[in-house]
Amino acid sequence: MAAHPVSPLAPKSFPDLPPVAGVRFATAEAGIKYKNRTDVLLMAFEEGTVAAGVLTRSKCSSAAVDWCRATLPAGVARGLVVNSGNANAFTGVRGRQSVAMTAEIAARALGCSTGEIFLASTGVIGEPLEAGKFAGVLDETATRLGDTPWIEAARAIMTTDTYPKLTGAVLEIDGVEVRINGIAKGSGMIAPDMATMLSFVVTDMPVAAPVLQALLARHTRTSFNAITVDSDTSTSDTLLAFATGKAALDPIAGLDDPRAEIFGQALADVLFELAIQVVRDGEGATKQVSIHVEGAVSDESAFRIAKAIADSPLVKTAIAGEDANWGRVVMAVGKAGEPADRDRLAIRFGDLTVAKDGERAEGYDEAATSAYMKGEELDLTVSLGLGAGKATVYTCDLTHGYIAINGDYRS
Amino acid sequence: MAAHPVSPLAPKSFPDLPPVAGVRFATAEAGIKYKNRTDVLLMAFEEGTVAAGVLTRSKCSSAAVDWCRATLPAGVARGLVVNSGNANAFTGVRGRQSVAMTAEIAARALGCSTGEIFLASTGVIGEPLEAGKFAGVLDETATRLGDTPWIEAARAIMTTDTYPKLTGAVLEIDGVEVRINGIAKGSGMIAPDMATMLSFVVTDMPVAAPVLQALLARHTRTSFNAITVDSDTSTSDTLLAFATGKAALDPIAGLDDPRAEIFGQALADVLFELAIQVVRDGEGATKQVSIHVEGAVSDESAFRIAKAIADSPLVKTAIAGEDANWGRVVMAVGKAGEPADRDRLAIRFGDLTVAKDGERAEGYDEAATSAYMKGEELDLTVSLGLGAGKATVYTCDLTHGYIAINGDYRS
Repeated sequence: MAAHPVSPLAPKSFPDLPPVAGVRFATAEAGIKYKNRTDVLLMAFEEGTVAAGVLTRSKCSSAAVDWCRATLPAGVARGLVVNSGNANAFTGVRGRQSVAMTAEIAARALGCSTGEIFLASTGVIGEPLEAGKFAGVLDETATRLGDTPWIEAARAIMTTDTYPKLTGAVLEIDGVEVRINGIAKGSGMIAPDMATMLSFVVTDMPVAAPVLQALLARHTRTSFNAITVDSDTSTSDTLLAFATGKAALDPIAGLDDPRAEIFGQALADVLFELAIQVVRDGEGATKQVSIHVEGAVSDESAFRIAKAIADSPLVKTAIAGEDANWGRVVMAVGKAGEPADRDRLAIRFGDLTVAKDGERAEGYDEAATSAYMKGEELDLTVSLGLGAGKATVYTCDLTHGYIAINGDYRS
Repeated sequence: MAAHPVSPLAPKSFPDLPPVAGVRFATAEAGIKYKNRTDVLLMAFEEGTVAAGVLTRSKCSSAAVDWCRATLPAGVARGLVVNSGNANAFTGVRGRQSVAMTAEIAARALGCSTGEIFLASTGVIGEPLEAGKFAGVLDETATRLGDTPWIEAARAIMTTDTYPKLTGAVLEIDGVEVRINGIAKGSGMIAPDMATMLSFVVTDMPVAAPVLQALLARHTRTSFNAITVDSDTSTSDTLLAFATGKAALDPIAGLDDPRAEIFGQALADVLFELAIQVVRDGEGATKQVSIHVEGAVSDESAFRIAKAIADSPLVKTAIAGEDANWGRVVMAVGKAGEPADRDRLAIRFGDLTVAKDGERAEGYDEAATSAYMKGEELDLTVSLGLGAGKATVYTCDLTHGYIAINGDYRS
């Protein structure tokens, strides 16, 4: 893989996440595809850890996704194995065998059953993944488990990512400190469909699996499912959450527990921050763009219009060129296939109204709008004037960098 | 507008189309946006000319599209005015006034009613179009009407097109020669939705308006509606067909007339050739790609899968990089949201089977596949193994050229 310059939107520093009781991890260099970097992450959870997950809806989902789909209903986790460099997707019978063998090796190393092992793979699609490569590596890795530093976990799962993605939250519930740590990877083939590329969140909050699942699904909608880099949905999208239950609190047994709201909001913040980090490391990205749609007939309709704008190559290239080309936003609204009345449409770039009532706004100031476009974080708002539906989609621009990265990614 | 290099896929020569009895035209420099080139096309049809058309389904359609939608049901044409450089889209009341005024000026110049005038505009969205600019120009242009050369008509309607697009057919029906001439323009914002950017076809065949309309709609499906450059659907897509009826034949009054089939096939050939020319001049294009999907549950399903592949930035950049990255084709099939069984999927690049039964094909030859990717015209075939549905979508690759053209198009 060619090395690509670090995204100009990369964070200036990375958080030093605290340990989460009940989880230890280690990384290793299995040499699956990359040289001189880690490409395997092994996490071990103490007994009593529950799991929840959101997986891709791709009709060509990877073998690891299929494995998680089968494992999730039990909601019990003791281990997680993630590898980068090979997605083990579209690898047929050998892919399924590889997944089963990896789970067996991990279960033996961690002393649990294979049904308690979760798996995720990311990288090239269609290349068989040699499970043999994991055998010695996982055994050895299991002898080095620790509870920090989380940035190493984030590093081991990167592919074309130019920086590791991690964040956390520490909250207090009934006087007890509760922690949530999360990692994610991007950065192309990003248009998650009820999931994301890969993201893993761990908390020590005692919470029943169905509650964790409900909270995860709810907050995925406005985080990972509200981002798009290139409209391409991965075969491997996987978001898993693990709750070790080690915080000294009674478990949240139902969504009607008032603590579900407090914990859920902290979880939402972590998911949102990770999702935004994925956008900011979108392949070739130089700008982060929030597309707000309001006044739609429903939230779902607003989302689809926002997605059409965020996925439009013409809108994205205009933003890359710092061109306040709001006509292309009109085009994208028009093609979305959702209810829209051209003659009620208004568009704002930041606070600047550029179009109103179906035409260029009176007093439209091209110079001010062009100046606004030079910013690194942009807000585009479309008001449809039809109803109360609203949604926001987060995206990045489309630059020469994207073409360069994807014209020679596999070779 | 910056000048961009001519597409490497441009035709080596242009056809010298013969006159079509009953139509004359002239072009002019109105200076709407471009300097030192024609930007207005005026066509005059003799009495008895019938019209048919297919227009964009964009919810933000241009004023000219709205005008044609209102005019088409009568099916009678005496004049066509096309301008490039300004789409007169999202221009509100002024856009509607501009269109009405242009129709009045043209009707006066040609001595007909405004309801017999068809209009199309292409270029920047959101800039008011000064109809005043047309007044003198159209009067003067009307004095220079001729029946050739058609290439000048094709040139006047270009925007970011790097070459004029024209083709024709001459067929014999009952011993009488019948002609069909057509022109079109591209070349970004191309994902026509029941229409195309702009295309105009003229024939001397006597044919009833409803028959012409039916044939046009039927053959748009496999020509203009089967192409995509960038998945962005224009506000201005317009395909109009005019039949002057000057060939010495009885009119085709119904689709059950056996001549409808013969004429329809020639019309289909003209539409297809124009559509392919649009793809070959797709912004930044260096390769023409045909995406074939077979074995789908229905033709519609096959089309949507083919479109998902053709619109995928990751597939398009891989093709630009001459990378036989069929894993990205798997990804695009997976995200299409249509019935697909991963484990029955087969993929061919040209005649080379790269994947079969849900995994890399036995005997897959990376060197041969890479060599195939160096070609200028590529065929990618996906076999789903589910049913008899099939479809083909025509597209081009996604290159640095697209980014360069669209990062500074408006300024």
